[in-house]
Amino acid sequence: MSILAVGSVAFDSIETPSGKVERELGGSATYFGLAASYFTDVRIVAVVGDDFGPEQEAVFWRRGIDIRGLERAPGKTFFWHGEYGADPNAARTRATELNVFQNFQPKIPAEYRDTEFLFLGNIDPRLQADVRRQMNGARLVGGDTMNYWINGSRQQLVETLKVIDVLMINDTEAKMLARESSLPRAARKVLAMGPKALVTKHGEYGSTVFFREGAFGIGHHPFRAPTLPLDEVRDPTGAGDSFGGGFMGYLASQGEVNREVLKRAMFYGGVMGSFAVEAFGTRRLQSLTREQIDERFAIFRELTHLE
Amino acid sequence: MSILAVGSVAFDSIETPSGKVERELGGSATYFGLAASYFTDVRIVAVVGDDFGPEQEAVFWRRGIDIRGLERAPGKTFFWHGEYGADPNAARTRATELNVFQNFQPKIPAEYRDTEFLFLGNIDPRLQADVRRQMNGARLVGGDTMNYWINGSRQQLVETLKVIDVLMINDTEAKMLARESSLPRAARKVLAMGPKALVTKHGEYGSTVFFREGAFGIGHHPFRAPTLPLDEVRDPTGAGDSFGGGFMGYLASQGEVNREVLKRAMFYGGVMGSFAVEAFGTRRLQSLTREQIDERFAIFRELTHLE
Repeated sequence: MSILAVGSVAFDSIETPSGKVERELGGSATYFGLAASYFTDVRIVAVVGDDFGPEQEAVFWRRGIDIRGLERAPGKTFFWHGEYGADPNAARTRATELNVFQNFQPKIPAEYRDTEFLFLGNIDPRLQADVRRQMNGARLVGGDTMNYWINGSRQQLVETLKVIDVLMINDTEAKMLARESSLPRAARKVLAMGPKALVTKHGEYGSTVFFREGAFGIGHHPFRAPTLPLDEVRDPTGAGDSFGGGFMGYLASQGEVNREVLKRAMFYGGVMGSFAVEAFGTRRLQSLTREQIDERFAIFRELTHLE
Repeated sequence: MSILAVGSVAFDSIETPSGKVERELGGSATYFGLAASYFTDVRIVAVVGDDFGPEQEAVFWRRGIDIRGLERAPGKTFFWHGEYGADPNAARTRATELNVFQNFQPKIPAEYRDTEFLFLGNIDPRLQADVRRQMNGARLVGGDTMNYWINGSRQQLVETLKVIDVLMINDTEAKMLARESSLPRAARKVLAMGPKALVTKHGEYGSTVFFREGAFGIGHHPFRAPTLPLDEVRDPTGAGDSFGGGFMGYLASQGEVNREVLKRAMFYGGVMGSFAVEAFGTRRLQSLTREQIDERFAIFRELTHLE
C-alpha cells in the first residue's frame, strides 16, 4: 500500500566532526520519503522555493517518489544551518530560515486522497490536524513532533494526538509531553492521549515501542529494537525521519498491521536510521538496495537474538 | 562451577526520590554474591569491621554464600552515604568512610584457591592484580573498575587488564579508558589492552558486549541485551554489581563458556540488575527464586526477539 508524507523539504548546511556540507538537500519529508521508498510507493506534500531545481527533483524521481504534491512558492526553500560536536544527539542551530515554509498550508492533491498510510512530519500540530481531516480515510497515521510544539502549542498538540495512531518521538520529548521522569510511566500517559502505539527513540541505544492495552492484538509488553554500534556517525541529521520512513514504509508494505509486523518495522526503522548517519545528508539513502537493507536487518537480529 | 568474588562489603545510607534507608548492607561483593548465588556456589573475600554482626552474616548464609574468606578487622566497616535525584545514573556522594577497607589486602584462603571463576570487584587495580596472581588457576576472570582508577592509577590498571578476561564497566568509563568518544572504537582499544570481552553497561538502555577477534568462537558482531523498562527505580545502588553477579554466576553454572553462553549471561545480568533496583539495598536480591528469575528472562526475550 502507498504512503503519504507531509513535512519539510529543505536545504541544510551541516558541520560535524567528520566534515561539512553546504546547502545539502534535506528536510523531514525528504529523509522519510527516501527511506520509505525501499518498501513501498511514496507520495510527498511539502513546499519548496525557486531555488529547488531539477537536480533536487531528480533525487526523488530516481527513487520513484511521487512529488506531484510538492508545492512551488515564490521565494527561497527552508534553510537550516547546524553543527554537531562529539555528541550526535545535540545539534547546535546556527541559522534557521523558514522562508516559504513559514506560510506552508498543506493541500492534499485529489489523486493522493486514497493513500492508505499517512505520516505527519514535525510541523505545527494545527496543520497536522488539518491534513488528517483531509485524509480521513487513512488506515494508519504516524506522526512526529518536538519540544517546540510540546511547550508552545500544547493544547493543539493534545488535540492532534487524538487522531494519530503511532507517535514517534525521542525519550526526552515523551517525558516532556507526559511531564513524567520515568519513560514507561510517560508512555502510559501519552498513550492515554490517543495514540495506539508510542515509539520512543534513544539515539545510539535504539528504540522502544509501547502499546496501548489491547491495541494491535494481545500482549502488554513493550518491544525494544537496537541500532548498529557505529564507529563513526558522520552526520546525525535526519536519523529520526529515516527511522520513521523505514518503520512506516515497512508497515505499508505489509497487508496487515499487527504486533509482529510492528516489531519488524521497529527493526527496519533502526536499519534505515543507521544507514542515514553513515554519510552526509541523504546521500546514503539515495543509493541503497533492498538487499543491503535486509543484510543489515539480519545483523540487527544477530545483535539482539539468542539462539 | 564455583565463583569467588573479591570486593567490598559495606553499610550504605541511601536517599532516592522513593525514600531513604540507613546503614543498609551493601558493597560490591555483597550485591555480586547475592545475585550470583541463584546460579552457582559463591565464595567471598572482603573485609568488615566490628559493626558487622550475625544479622549481616545471616544474609550471606541464607543464600548459601561461603564467607569464610571474610576478614574481620578492628574498626568500622566501609560506610557510604549517597543520594540520587531524578537521574538514577547519577549518585551524589554525601560521605565515604573507608574505615577497615582502607588497608584491605585481600588474602585468598587455601580452600578457595581452586575456585574456577573469579570476579575482581571495583578495588585498587594493584590489589586486583595481586588477587589474580594468587588465583592463577582460574578459568575465567571478570573485573570491574571506575573513573577513579582510570584517571588516578592508569598504568597499574592497564597492567591488570592484561589478566582480566571480561571487563564490565559503563559506557563513560569505557570511553574514558580508551580516550575515544565512539563506543565501538573505544571497545576495540580496550580489547587490545587484554580482555577477551568487554561488557559495557548503558543504564536503562541495557548493555552491549564486544568480543575480541576470535575470542569465544567465531563471529565478530557485538551483542546487545536489554533491561526492563521499569516504572520506578527505587534504589539504583548495586545495579552494576548485580548485573555482574547474574552474568558471571550464569557463566559459572555452564560447562563451557562460548559466545551463546555469554549472550545468555548478558540477559541474566540484565535480569538481576532489574531486580536489584526494585527495592532498597539488597532486599530484592535476598528473596528471589530461580523461577522468578527465569520468568523475567522470558520477558527480556519477548522484549527483544522477533518471532
